[in-house]
Amino acid sequence: MTERITVRDIAAESGLSIATVSRVINAQGQVSESARHRVAEAIGRLGGTAPVPRPRLPKPELPVLVRCPYRLSDYFGGLVTAVAETLALSGRQVLLDVGDSRLPAPVLRELPAERTVAGAVLILPPEPVEDLAFLQQRRFPVVIVDPRKPVPRGMVSIAAAHTAGARAITGHLIGLGHRRIGVVSGPADWLTGADRMAGHLAALSEAGLLGSPDLVRYGEPAIFTGVAAGGELLDLPERPTAIVCFNDKVAVGVFQAAAERGLRVPRDLAVTGFDDSEMSLATAPMLTTVRQPLPEMGRIAVTMLTRLIEGQALDALHIELATELVVRGSTGEAP
Amino acid sequence: MTERITVRDIAAESGLSIATVSRVINAQGQVSESARHRVAEAIGRLGGTAPVPRPRLPKPELPVLVRCPYRLSDYFGGLVTAVAETLALSGRQVLLDVGDSRLPAPVLRELPAERTVAGAVLILPPEPVEDLAFLQQRRFPVVIVDPRKPVPRGMVSIAAAHTAGARAITGHLIGLGHRRIGVVSGPADWLTGADRMAGHLAALSEAGLLGSPDLVRYGEPAIFTGVAAGGELLDLPERPTAIVCFNDKVAVGVFQAAAERGLRVPRDLAVTGFDDSEMSLATAPMLTTVRQPLPEMGRIAVTMLTRLIEGQALDALHIELATELVVRGSTGEAP
Repeated sequence: MTERITVRDIAAESGLSIATVSRVINAQGQVSESARHRVAEAIGRLGGTAPVPRPRLPKPELPVLVRCPYRLSDYFGGLVTAVAETLALSGRQVLLDVGDSRLPAPVLRELPAERTVAGAVLILPPEPVEDLAFLQQRRFPVVIVDPRKPVPRGMVSIAAAHTAGARAITGHLIGLGHRRIGVVSGPADWLTGADRMAGHLAALSEAGLLGSPDLVRYGEPAIFTGVAAGGELLDLPERPTAIVCFNDKVAVGVFQAAAERGLRVPRDLAVTGFDDSEMSLATAPMLTTVRQPLPEMGRIAVTMLTRLIEGQALDALHIELATELVVRGSTGEAP
Repeated sequence: MTERITVRDIAAESGLSIATVSRVINAQGQVSESARHRVAEAIGRLGGTAPVPRPRLPKPELPVLVRCPYRLSDYFGGLVTAVAETLALSGRQVLLDVGDSRLPAPVLRELPAERTVAGAVLILPPEPVEDLAFLQQRRFPVVIVDPRKPVPRGMVSIAAAHTAGARAITGHLIGLGHRRIGVVSGPADWLTGADRMAGHLAALSEAGLLGSPDLVRYGEPAIFTGVAAGGELLDLPERPTAIVCFNDKVAVGVFQAAAERGLRVPRDLAVTGFDDSEMSLATAPMLTTVRQPLPEMGRIAVTMLTRLIEGQALDALHIELATELVVRGSTGEAP
């Protein structure tokens, strides 16, 4: 076992000042070759592990990057608005990176070196986990909102309580007598989808039911997915009496699939959404859905990021914010 | 008549170098009191009007401010995405200012002095026209998207062809035999609303009809406006057979008002929206609407702003982009 030695130890051993040793260790400012050499020799003589360099925090007055590499819909736009409003309240400027065409840009790995932003809020980041881990190694302040995949250990992430929300909505359907419940989920490898499926299965289990893979479909969270996947489920020999959808858009597609087959919502089919976007008020009947606390998610993200930028310690690293079941007309008693 | 004298004239008259005279005129860099004095004397002796100081253009590599002081919905989010994507393509960073709570901030008048941004795209700016004129006087590069009020002369603005779009949709209803057509417009003092009303009245006139103020309501472009104002129109002793709405959200509200009164769309009432947001696909039947070319509006805004930042001359100062009538199930033959 070797003990980690301090800058003070090295200064005493090498005869250099603490400031000089610190500059060598942190690779900052001007240091002579001989100072570097004497520090290395002192570490060798002391026989321990060298001190960890001090993280080079970006300047706190720099703007914050908000990256949401998607088209700003009601959902993503709501998140970005909440983040930007909160940053503005604390006097910080927002550098924005949005839009589908920005997806392939390898921007993340450049952030720590560029030092043009104080930190970043990454919304549903499509980058591989290694890129996020890289930011963490460089101690670059970053908060993930809506992680797609499990984030590296020690990284701050914020999401709605997807499991609890999905469990509540499936529980609501079970309470109405539904037993054969279809699922149109998001992309198969999204954490959000996996979390919601866990909530769905938990609610089924509580009622003594086992979910069937036959009743599950996956796809992009868009209307066309609801039309296609909803149609497939409704064309099954024994069709479901209810379909829970990944979001309100998918539910709109399932409404269309039902209408194409002469099925009426909720008499013949119960349909649920997720998000409580304004679109959930446009269907007839209006959509039973789960409200995601977008403004609160944005505020918490900024609070956590600010603390990271200021070098404060954080206790809770993954924060889940409560969702709310919103019951409207699209769910009724099972036929 | 006095002639405007040039920097060259003053240099010859005062014996100072052109560079020194230029520094005095433009109040830039170091100049001595005596140089200032000699320039003033020379201008006096030459008896003309002093040269106009060169506009102090912000540095082109600075970010661009995108200000959209509203919650980013499908509509505003679509615009901001288009602007940000295009700016990113040209290597420019986007400073974002969004959110309802930002409305009262007097940011515009500070922009030219702060020099933290190269220019600005202002989306539906709520500021008084004097604030926009102030930016123009300071030659600060700015482009208005969706002006609320007529912009100062010489300022660049971009909007969808609201008049043509509204004329097309009322024309479509007239073609279906509708003669008594209600209007739920946006706020009474929005330019967009006035332009669309002009298009509506033009289409009526072409069919030999005069619009009636009894059939027009105004309000926030939101679902609740459609519910309330649509309800008022449907409760008139002689109710309209069609209602044209300021946007898709208002149309959703009118659908609800119709349903509350046992009226079916389109058999008893034709309803039209504006924007062609995804919400127009959620109603049953789907909404006849007017597509606004959001991506193109964003691209043109950035193109124009870039030319202003680079000091190029612009010919067309107000650009209208063609809209497209999208006919779906919410409009049918008049009863």
